[in-house]
Amino acid sequence: MTSCHNYESLPAARRVAIFGGTHGNEMSGVTLVNQWIKNETEIQRPGFQIKPFITNPRAVEKCTRYIDTDLNRAFTTENLSAEKSEDLPYEVSRAQEINRLFGPKGSQEAYDVIFDLHNTTSNMGGTLILESSKDDCNLQMVHYVQNALIPMSCSVLLTEHPTLKYAASRSVAKRPVGVEVGPQPHGTIRGDVLDTMKKIIKHALDFIQLFNEGKEFSPCTVDVYRITESVDYPRDKDGNISAMIHTDLQDRDWQALNPGDPMFLTFDGRTIPYEGDSTVYPTFINEAAYYEKQQAFVITRKETLTVKGIRVSQA
Amino acid sequence: MTSCHNYESLPAARRVAIFGGTHGNEMSGVTLVNQWIKNETEIQRPGFQIKPFITNPRAVEKCTRYIDTDLNRAFTTENLSAEKSEDLPYEVSRAQEINRLFGPKGSQEAYDVIFDLHNTTSNMGGTLILESSKDDCNLQMVHYVQNALIPMSCSVLLTEHPTLKYAASRSVAKRPVGVEVGPQPHGTIRGDVLDTMKKIIKHALDFIQLFNEGKEFSPCTVDVYRITESVDYPRDKDGNISAMIHTDLQDRDWQALNPGDPMFLTFDGRTIPYEGDSTVYPTFINEAAYYEKQQAFVITRKETLTVKGIRVSQA
Ligand SMILES: [Zn+2]
Ligand SMILES: [Zn+2]
Repeated sequence: MTSCHNYESLPAARRVAIFGGTHGNEMSGVTLVNQWIKNETEIQRPGFQIKPFITNPRAVEKCTRYIDTDLNRAFTTENLSAEKSEDLPYEVSRAQEINRLFGPKGSQEAYDVIFDLHNTTSNMGGTLILESSKDDCNLQMVHYVQNALIPMSCSVLLTEHPTLKYAASRSVAKRPVGVEVGPQPHGTIRGDVLDTMKKIIKHALDFIQLFNEGKEFSPCTVDVYRITESVDYPRDKDGNISAMIHTDLQDRDWQALNPGDPMFLTFDGRTIPYEGDSTVYPTFINEAAYYEKQQAFVITRKETLTVKGIRVSQA
Repeated sequence: MTSCHNYESLPAARRVAIFGGTHGNEMSGVTLVNQWIKNETEIQRPGFQIKPFITNPRAVEKCTRYIDTDLNRAFTTENLSAEKSEDLPYEVSRAQEINRLFGPKGSQEAYDVIFDLHNTTSNMGGTLILESSKDDCNLQMVHYVQNALIPMSCSVLLTEHPTLKYAASRSVAKRPVGVEVGPQPHGTIRGDVLDTMKKIIKHALDFIQLFNEGKEFSPCTVDVYRITESVDYPRDKDGNISAMIHTDLQDRDWQALNPGDPMFLTFDGRTIPYEGDSTVYPTFINEAAYYEKQQAFVITRKETLTVKGIRVSQA
C-alpha cells in the first residue's frame, strides 16, 4: 500500500464472499444466497472469485435466528482459538469452520471482502454497516453504491466503538461489509426488501470490478451514522419490559430525535421523552431480535468522513 | 332462546374471558393480557365476570409461537379426550387444562364469550374472526364494534368452512371471537397495533354490557369475508419455496385480486398471475407463521349477512 498526496494504491480484491443465513430467519439474504449457489450467473464478475455461502445452515433449516448462540457475535479470539470439542455450542464450532474457510481472521490469507446479508424488522431501508472510518476502499465502495442507488437512499452505520462493535461473521475478512435491509418480519420474504438487497450487492460487485480493472476513484466525503449508545426498554422491578417504542419514534430510523421528543410509552400510558442534550439519530428501532439483547434501539451521531482517492496497485 | 319476528331473545353473557399468548410471540395480546392481569380496571364492567388469561405461558416465556405443537389447532375432540400422560405434547395437556377452566367445549357450563388476541405479520389491520354465520349475537357485536371504530375499519373473517376451520383455543367458548391485528412482526410490540387491539376489546365489552343491561339491537347487515381456499407458495421438485408474494399483492390484504393480477414472483424473475375465474379477496398475505403451514395467503369471498335483532331474555 503506497500513499501519494491524497490517493492510495491498494491491492486488487481477488476473493470475495457473500454470506447469507448468519441469522437463519432473515430470509432475503438466505433466499438470495441459496439462489446464487444454484446459479452464479447474476453475481459472476471477470477477474475475481465470488463465493455465495450459507453460514448457519442448521438455523436456516429451522428458520430460527440461531441454534445455541448468536453466530454474529461468535467470532471472538477466544471462540476461534477454543479447543475443538463436542461440548462447544454449534455456532462456536461453525465459527471456527468459517474462519478456516474464509480467514484466518486478521491474516493475509483471509478473504478480501465479505458481504454479510441481514434483515431487520426496523424501518432502516438499505443499510451498509462498516467497522472502520479508516478503510478508504470500503468507504469508496459505499460512496459508489449510494450514488448508483439514487433516488433510493442507503445509510451507513459505523460500528467503530470500543464496546458496541461486535465479533461478526464478516469480521473474518480483511474488509467486512454488513448489508442490513428492512423492514421485513423475520421468517418472511418481502419482495421490496429482497430487491433492495440484490441491488446493493450488484453495485458493490460492480465497484470491485471497476476498481480491480484500474478505474481511479477520486477523493470524496461520505456521511455516516456513528453508533454511540445502546438504549434498553424501561423495565419494572422484576426486569420485565414496562414500555414500548412510542408511536412517534416507531419507523423513524435515521431521523432526528431531539431532547424532549417522545421515546417510549409505558403500558400504563405515560410518555417518556428523550433526555439527552443534543440531537441524535436512532436506528435498529424495535428490532425483534434485540429484545433479548435488552436493546430498544441504538443511538447514532451523524458525521462526514473525508475519504482518500484510491486506485489499484500494479502488482 | 325465543324468536319473535326477526328478533331473538338471548341469555345475558355472564362469563367472558380474554386470552393472550395462544401464540407466545404475538406480543400485543401478551402485553395487554399481562397488563390486565396486573390491573383489571380497564376491562372491568358491571354485571359480568371478565377473566384475562395467558393460554400458553411456556411459549410466552420463550417468546416463540409454541413449544411442541400449535395450541391454536389443539382443541380437537381427540386431544381434549386424550388420556392424561407425561408423553402428551405440552400444548395438548395445556388445551385439556384450558378446557377444564373455560369449557367443557360444547357444554352449557362453557364460558359465554372468549376473545383470543392474535397478531399477524400481514397487513390485515384490525380483524374479527368468527366461526359461524348464524351467531346473531356475535354478528351484532361485530356490527357494534365496526361502528364504534369508525373511521378505522375492522374486517370480519368468517372461517365457516368444512376443512379450513380449525380447533382454536377460543372454540372452548359458546361464542368464540378471534381478534387478529397486524402488521406486527412476531416478537415485537408496535404501539399502533396494540392500540387497535385495545380499542376493539373496549368496544366489544361495551357491547356485552349494553346487551346485558337490556339494550335492544335492531336487525342489521354485516359484510364478511368468507374463507374459501388456502394458497401455498409455488415450490420446486424438492418441495422448497421457489417464489415470493408479488410486490403488487404484498400488503394488499382485503383488496380485490382479479383474474390475471400478479400473485407470485419466482426467484428467477417470472410473474405468476392469479388464474381463478372471479374476483377474490386475499388475506393473511405473507404471514410468517404460515410458511410452515404451506400457506402463502387465504382466499376469501365477500358476502353480506343479514342479522336478526337481539335483546336479552328476562331470566
Ligand atoms: Zn441479522
Ligand atoms: Zn396467532
